[in-house]
Amino acid sequence: MSGPLHFVDRIKRVEEHLRESGLGAMFITPGSDLSYLIGYHAVPLERLTMLVVTPNNDPFLIVPRLERSAALASPFGSTGWDVISWGESDDPYAIITNRLSGLSGTVALDGHMWADRVLTIQMRFPSITFVSAAPIINAIRIIKSPDELDHLRAAAAAIDRVHAQVPLLLGAGRTEREVGRDIADLILAEGHSSVDFVIVAAGPNGASPHHEVSDKVIEVGEPVVIDIGGTMPSGYCSDCTRTYSVGEPSREFMDRYEVLQRAQVLSTQAVHHGAQSHDIDAAGRIELTEHGLGQFFIHRTGHGIGLDTHEEPYIGPDNPTVISSGMVFSIEPGFYIEGQHGARIEDIVICTPNGPETLNKQTRDLVIIPSS
Amino acid sequence: MSGPLHFVDRIKRVEEHLRESGLGAMFITPGSDLSYLIGYHAVPLERLTMLVVTPNNDPFLIVPRLERSAALASPFGSTGWDVISWGESDDPYAIITNRLSGLSGTVALDGHMWADRVLTIQMRFPSITFVSAAPIINAIRIIKSPDELDHLRAAAAAIDRVHAQVPLLLGAGRTEREVGRDIADLILAEGHSSVDFVIVAAGPNGASPHHEVSDKVIEVGEPVVIDIGGTMPSGYCSDCTRTYSVGEPSREFMDRYEVLQRAQVLSTQAVHHGAQSHDIDAAGRIELTEHGLGQFFIHRTGHGIGLDTHEEPYIGPDNPTVISSGMVFSIEPGFYIEGQHGARIEDIVICTPNGPETLNKQTRDLVIIPSS
Repeated sequence: MSGPLHFVDRIKRVEEHLRESGLGAMFITPGSDLSYLIGYHAVPLERLTMLVVTPNNDPFLIVPRLERSAALASPFGSTGWDVISWGESDDPYAIITNRLSGLSGTVALDGHMWADRVLTIQMRFPSITFVSAAPIINAIRIIKSPDELDHLRAAAAAIDRVHAQVPLLLGAGRTEREVGRDIADLILAEGHSSVDFVIVAAGPNGASPHHEVSDKVIEVGEPVVIDIGGTMPSGYCSDCTRTYSVGEPSREFMDRYEVLQRAQVLSTQAVHHGAQSHDIDAAGRIELTEHGLGQFFIHRTGHGIGLDTHEEPYIGPDNPTVISSGMVFSIEPGFYIEGQHGARIEDIVICTPNGPETLNKQTRDLVIIPSS
Repeated sequence: MSGPLHFVDRIKRVEEHLRESGLGAMFITPGSDLSYLIGYHAVPLERLTMLVVTPNNDPFLIVPRLERSAALASPFGSTGWDVISWGESDDPYAIITNRLSGLSGTVALDGHMWADRVLTIQMRFPSITFVSAAPIINAIRIIKSPDELDHLRAAAAAIDRVHAQVPLLLGAGRTEREVGRDIADLILAEGHSSVDFVIVAAGPNGASPHHEVSDKVIEVGEPVVIDIGGTMPSGYCSDCTRTYSVGEPSREFMDRYEVLQRAQVLSTQAVHHGAQSHDIDAAGRIELTEHGLGQFFIHRTGHGIGLDTHEEPYIGPDNPTVISSGMVFSIEPGFYIEGQHGARIEDIVICTPNGPETLNKQTRDLVIIPSS
């Protein structure tokens, strides 16, 4: 684990951004931004926990009294900065208004702060303008440190070990839900601390990119899209999709799958320092389009990953974001044909100074499982 | 599962509340409010999904194109109301501004809507006042239907089956984390679809009510607080705490635990239609206070439970909420003595017309596990 100094650096960078943008403060409630900035993995609950960062004074953390010892045990507790706890009958917002009595101008709120809190804060600070903190925090989070890259490599290896065992679970006659339950157990057994999502989409269900599981029985000859991920004890996420088939699928599906596989390679190869997001997307999309599958590739090519499964940078057609070394994202083209079937291949890729480093290593070939 | 009619009723009740309160609309993004109102369990992701309810016209649901089939497969899809999908390069907020071009007055936003969205909506509707939808939706959600009560009974039975197996997992020499991992597996194996939290707090760690797990080795004679919960396929949550000890704990702990056990019974017995939240809290708190433990009972007595682990009603000292038949909440007094130990006993209780119905059935006695 990283020591407190690491987190102090992150806070210093926020303070710099606040000074550069002329912002009066940033308020951050539990979630991945809070985890990233101070290493405190607080559960988002109804009692207010809030980190306050200002341009020129020390940050402070407001916590419910019953979370005080957990907050002090986090890296923030070793910084010497104030942890202010409030009791069950106190008004936690009054702590902020008192400590920031001279506050004026504009304040940034973490992008996932709950509306209830946003609206309360807006009432308590009627003369302040509020903006999203997401642009500032994302600009910091988007470039992963060597430590973070190692955490993401470990997460990818863990989900790869799950995919390696999927052929033992898949069989005609089992339901998507049964297979999904077994996969969830494996996600934990292979080192994740939580299961974030399990998609098992057989046959026509594969045509819905975000189908989860159902009581549908998997039939012989049906492709099965399996997209799974979890969060590791480090806080970092895994996410990997492979497509399987129980018995031989149709010739038509096989032909389409081969196009998809080439498209996935082409987009991965397009990853390099200085590339634009839309170029990476286009590399694979053109291949699918040239073979009549463009209209069935109904989503963008990928999303960043880190403490959140989906975060910056996004890889899509209209996105001019310039990709830099240290960014990490998925490359996951697919095709979705309603009433028929779907397929997707997804790897997590680091943009390194020398091009792409693909973290997921299981075969990208269609995995055909004997049907008897 | 409930059919669409059930959900239509819930929407009709929101429409009534909007008319009564003179509100122009309610906007609801993915989360438990959306699940409750239309049975669509959408994952909160960066692409906008939003239900719009107005006082006098049909509701409509905005979804990213790649979620369209999942949305149509939900109960909302059978109502005949509009599902409007948007593509990767569309502006989803423009759909709302176009369809609600005459909107004026006040609009309610779901209480957990992300700040990014709140701030965007506020910019798009500069003349509208925004308030939290929580008071309206909570007033509906707080009274559970017979179906919901059955879901909560099933959730409690599932977590009880996990607690029944905890004595087999606990032993001196194991770490909290190892025990926690095994418990997480059991939470899934016993029928939950996700693990929401696993607290294994041994010895001094028990003094932090929201401690999760650590690498601390469990020692002989240490009490261990185990507070666990998950979400069932129905969407309803479980939450149950029992306190264990590996070998005999100190006499002092045993004496304190007996007081706690009486306090937990007293608060449970105080549950009846028409009681006030603070009376239920006081019933147990007085017992703890009379035996010198009042200062160590540092949180409220309980929280409502349903599609969220923590929801209305809250059971606490300053809370005048009148408890009615059909409300469901935890009764979970505890004591937390820094540097020494802690204990908590938690049951989920339904307020029925005839008083409390306790859903968790495992013994509330301290469970002492032989230390060799």
